[in-house]
Amino acid sequence: MSQAADETALRTHYFSLRVYYEDTDAGGIVYHANYLKFFERARTELLIASGLGLTSIQARFELSFVIKSVNLRYFLPAKLEDQLDVLTKLVKIGAASLVFEQSIYRAGEDVLLCSATVVVVAIDSALKPSPIPEALKQELKRER
Amino acid sequence: MSQAADETALRTHYFSLRVYYEDTDAGGIVYHANYLKFFERARTELLIASGLGLTSIQARFELSFVIKSVNLRYFLPAKLEDQLDVLTKLVKIGAASLVFEQSIYRAGEDVLLCSATVVVVAIDSALKPSPIPEALKQELKRER
Amino acid sequence: MSQAADETALRTHYFSLRVYYEDTDAGGIVYHANYLKFFERARTELLIASGLGLTSIQARFELSFVIKSVNLRYFLPAKLEDQLDVLTKLVKIGAASLVFEQSIYRAGEDVLLCSATVVVVAIDSALKPSPIPEALKQELKRER
Amino acid sequence: MSQAADETALRTHYFSLRVYYEDTDAGGIVYHANYLKFFERARTELLIASGLGLTSIQARFELSFVIKSVNLRYFLPAKLEDQLDVLTKLVKIGAASLVFEQSIYRAGEDVLLCSATVVVVAIDSALKPSPIPEALKQELKRER
Repeated sequence: MSQAADETALRTHYFSLRVYYEDTDAGGIVYHANYLKFFERARTELLIASGLGLTSIQARFELSFVIKSVNLRYFLPAKLEDQLDVLTKLVKIGAASLVFEQSIYRAGEDVLLCSATVVVVAIDSALKPSPIPEALKQELKRER
Repeated sequence: MSQAADETALRTHYFSLRVYYEDTDAGGIVYHANYLKFFERARTELLIASGLGLTSIQARFELSFVIKSVNLRYFLPAKLEDQLDVLTKLVKIGAASLVFEQSIYRAGEDVLLCSATVVVVAIDSALKPSPIPEALKQELKRER
Repeated sequence: MSQAADETALRTHYFSLRVYYEDTDAGGIVYHANYLKFFERARTELLIASGLGLTSIQARFELSFVIKSVNLRYFLPAKLEDQLDVLTKLVKIGAASLVFEQSIYRAGEDVLLCSATVVVVAIDSALKPSPIPEALKQELKRER
Repeated sequence: MSQAADETALRTHYFSLRVYYEDTDAGGIVYHANYLKFFERARTELLIASGLGLTSIQARFELSFVIKSVNLRYFLPAKLEDQLDVLTKLVKIGAASLVFEQSIYRAGEDVLLCSATVVVVAIDSALKPSPIPEALKQELKRER
């Protein structure tokens, strides 16, 4: 993957996974909805790499993140047993939202399979949008 | 499906579904774990046919059901766009458990694709096994 | 659902489904990727309502449809045991592509939970984009 | 995990995974069907550790493996963000079948969450049971 850490990204993270039977469909390729799972695994690992587990964010900051929108583009199909690299860039930290640019490559190749722009919103326990505390913003920007 | 309502079953229920891309894998057939989803959809519909929604069981009886064991046998594969019939028999109501015998057929054919024996256990809010109240036992036995 | 068949849609289709445990996640709501499954079930049923099964399209026209892009917007979460209505509009038939506007409502309510714009592309057996034959275009426009 | 490599197992393999949102359900725990996915990931990795990718088995030996039966036992639930260890033992290589004993533990703990006995059968391209060649039997027994 030639994409270097981007000047404009607040945070760049790499995650690898293998394609198993569960991920594929009768077309012989990865089922289109499953790329959303791969992208979420990668975002979760980005948070964990900052010491921010999903349950710890809730416990410490009394908020959780829900998905507001996803724009998906499919370029080439991934296949059974492929090793995939997921590149995740945190490109914006808003008052109550985060924007991620994510893309999936077949490992060791320079060919883009799928990309997504994902917007998540912080909500409180009453499910209302909630400002993201400054401390959390700082932790999101750095890998521990 | 020639299987008539069984003398020994406390309750017999039929459920139909179609196989979509999401259910299949790169082998061109239904992914083996997805039969468990089909069986659970059918058990849920059996409960609903008794007026026993999952949330209403919890609200009225302060218990929920968790799966203790599943014995699955695979005979022939289901395929994309197949219309399937799921036959569910409630064969035993124990002190704190239910036993279901379930089987899946391609609609209009008399050929068994997959069968399962599923044991579920009633648990209370502390996740401890809980006796099934007599009122619930009665409702489980009849379709409204 | 108050949305009447749209003047601008070439085709409008309704599909209903129930939310089972398999569709939900630990947040207590439908897992975000699973709406893509619901939307695909609805598009498949629209095709079948035109007499166009997935396998029959391939057999008769030597092409299949793959997803090019999906723009998803999440408004309110669906929950366990919800009955959902999926409204599908075929809004454009291009030279080699179809555009669908889809939206999901809780049954009997007028509140939008999730919407998507889905672009699919026709490909031949060599996975190259393929023009959609006129006969198929005509069949796509009408319900049998 | 205290279970040492078993005298009676022909082969023992360990696989680790993390529980993501996609794996859980509205009960707040891993959805019961998803343990089947975890077990299959582990069997696939056992094969790959022997140099036996799924596609290479098919190419070299003109056979593939399908699941004949699964006996699942659920003991304690896995939860969001859990790190799980999957222990896989190949316990029998029959004329045309393999038997695996598999179990899942929360990492670093000695508590069994779920176990399964999985029987897979070798089939040829006509989907008929096929004897497992001696060369494949030997490769299955050793890690490269």
